Amino acid sequence: MDEFELVARYFDHPQAERNQVTLGIGDDGAVLAHMPGTESVIVTDTLVCGTHFHKEHSAASIGHRALAVNLSDIAAMGASAEWATLNLTLPSFDESWIEQFAASLLALARRYDVALVGGDTTRGPLSVTMTVGGRVNTGAALRRNGAQPGDSIYVSGLLGGAAAALERDDVHSEDALLDALWYPQPRLALGVALVGLAHSAIDISDGLLSDLGHVLHASANLGADIDAARIPLYPQAERDLGHRRALELALGGGDDYELCFTVPTARRGSVSVLEEELALPLTCIGEVTPSGACHVRHNGRILTELVPGYRHTWSG
Amino acid sequence: MDEFELVARYFDHPQAERNQVTLGIGDDGAVLAHMPGTESVIVTDTLVCGTHFHKEHSAASIGHRALAVNLSDIAAMGASAEWATLNLTLPSFDESWIEQFAASLLALARRYDVALVGGDTTRGPLSVTMTVGGRVNTGAALRRNGAQPGDSIYVSGLLGGAAAALERDDVHSEDALLDALWYPQPRLALGVALVGLAHSAIDISDGLLSDLGHVLHASANLGADIDAARIPLYPQAERDLGHRRALELALGGGDDYELCFTVPTARRGSVSVLEEELALPLTCIGEVTPSGACHVRHNGRILTELVPGYRHTWSG
Repeated sequence: MDEFELVARYFDHPQAERNQVTLGIGDDGAVLAHMPGTESVIVTDTLVCGTHFHKEHSAASIGHRALAVNLSDIAAMGASAEWATLNLTLPSFDESWIEQFAASLLALARRYDVALVGGDTTRGPLSVTMTVGGRVNTGAALRRNGAQPGDSIYVSGLLGGAAAALERDDVHSEDALLDALWYPQPRLALGVALVGLAHSAIDISDGLLSDLGHVLHASANLGADIDAARIPLYPQAERDLGHRRALELALGGGDDYELCFTVPTARRGSVSVLEEELALPLTCIGEVTPSGACHVRHNGRILTELVPGYRHTWSG
Repeated sequence: MDEFELVARYFDHPQAERNQVTLGIGDDGAVLAHMPGTESVIVTDTLVCGTHFHKEHSAASIGHRALAVNLSDIAAMGASAEWATLNLTLPSFDESWIEQFAASLLALARRYDVALVGGDTTRGPLSVTMTVGGRVNTGAALRRNGAQPGDSIYVSGLLGGAAAALERDDVHSEDALLDALWYPQPRLALGVALVGLAHSAIDISDGLLSDLGHVLHASANLGADIDAARIPLYPQAERDLGHRRALELALGGGDDYELCFTVPTARRGSVSVLEEELALPLTCIGEVTPSGACHVRHNGRILTELVPGYRHTWSG
């Protein structure tokens, strides 16, 4: 089987029909129409075997995750997802692997009405790149740089689950932590609802403190006061690793793919309404300060022993 | 140096200013405005070390090529390029390599007014994925499926140079063949000029016969008569490898990144005018037939010993 048949068999299935896809897979490029009054949002992420996942992880989880981490970026911009391209590099042809990978990826695409419009399959060390396009009303995109002193800082869902699953290093059991790691749920409905409500938003991929730090830095170097007791933790992580370690992983572990956003205090009621509508925990964990420093307080003391957010560090 | 500093230092330079880039590198996603009356064209390609290039090849050539092969797809759609994202996977931090890679890539981007709006850097086996967006007037995109019986079949430039350079396996000398391999020139001006003139177009990446085959197959399974004597060859390839081998590589070698297009015979004069305007050889090599078979004739005989176009073949 060659590349063309591979793509045709597993990826060119009938998908979410989107009016704006004038031309999908099969030519030199895809052609997409625009909706008047909107702008495009473009995001892209790569998952590399050995860095972002390991060989023993299931094809279904890798397929889901490759799209989900991109949809999480789309959500953080307050956009709706429209289309995606897939660049899949494979060391060999394993039909069962590809079938499961594609089925999981396309299931997530259908759920959010995303059309797979193109891509490239190549031979080489296993890695997956996806690029996703979305739509937002002109001028409405959520940015990192809009936080203001006094804003309430919120996070969606529970934090630290993926990092806790990795720390246990047990890839075979099934529980909420492994679901968090392998099947992250992009918060697209939340992102769209935050347009006009949140001053700033970011998705938590590198760890809460690291990503909140990006928001504060971009927003004129503001600071924050975070109440450790309010950080929403996975009960399973507290049971398996203890409260203190679960908290550290929630602050700095990464791979959460929840949203962190700031809203003016006067709009906190709207966030409560949204929490009910979406049936998704939206927890106020602190507030933006003009101080320039980000403090995490626990029982009135400033916690200092924090695990820093994950950043790619290159040693020479 | 970490990922963020790396991106900031080498890729977030002042670029071709494009009015439609509302928000570039630095947030969760880029935000792009649309021009009324246009559609977007999306293309993507991955280059993997060991498959599409080798370690000893220069960073500058890899950076150029990663963007050029995508711009070639944009050209084949008759579109203008607007933006690009870059996913760069590196085994280690080699500042000199990154600097040369980025400079070459950004130089090509500036030449065609392409804004680098986002991307991802990851650690792993060396590979480069780029995704490029372009613009075409609504309904004007060139497709593969529009060829008609009697159309004249044209190719741009000279063919077989990249394949000849590979066959010589001499990566250190500098000549026209190595330029063809490492610095392919995307035919963007040609692609735009072919809108309203060509019935169909494709870029030659897998080899002339293979890519022309895609056009014929997509165009209701038409055929073609090709005159081998008219195929434009690199004189250097004929000198180094002999006429016969140079011809075989021009027919089936791949990596040409020239355009193959079909035009109604009545418009051949317009192609001649275009050839002069662009100072680019545009050579009629044969015509589309209703036969369903693609014949290459040489001195009246049908050539049979053809090197098939490159296709990725997966062995179980």
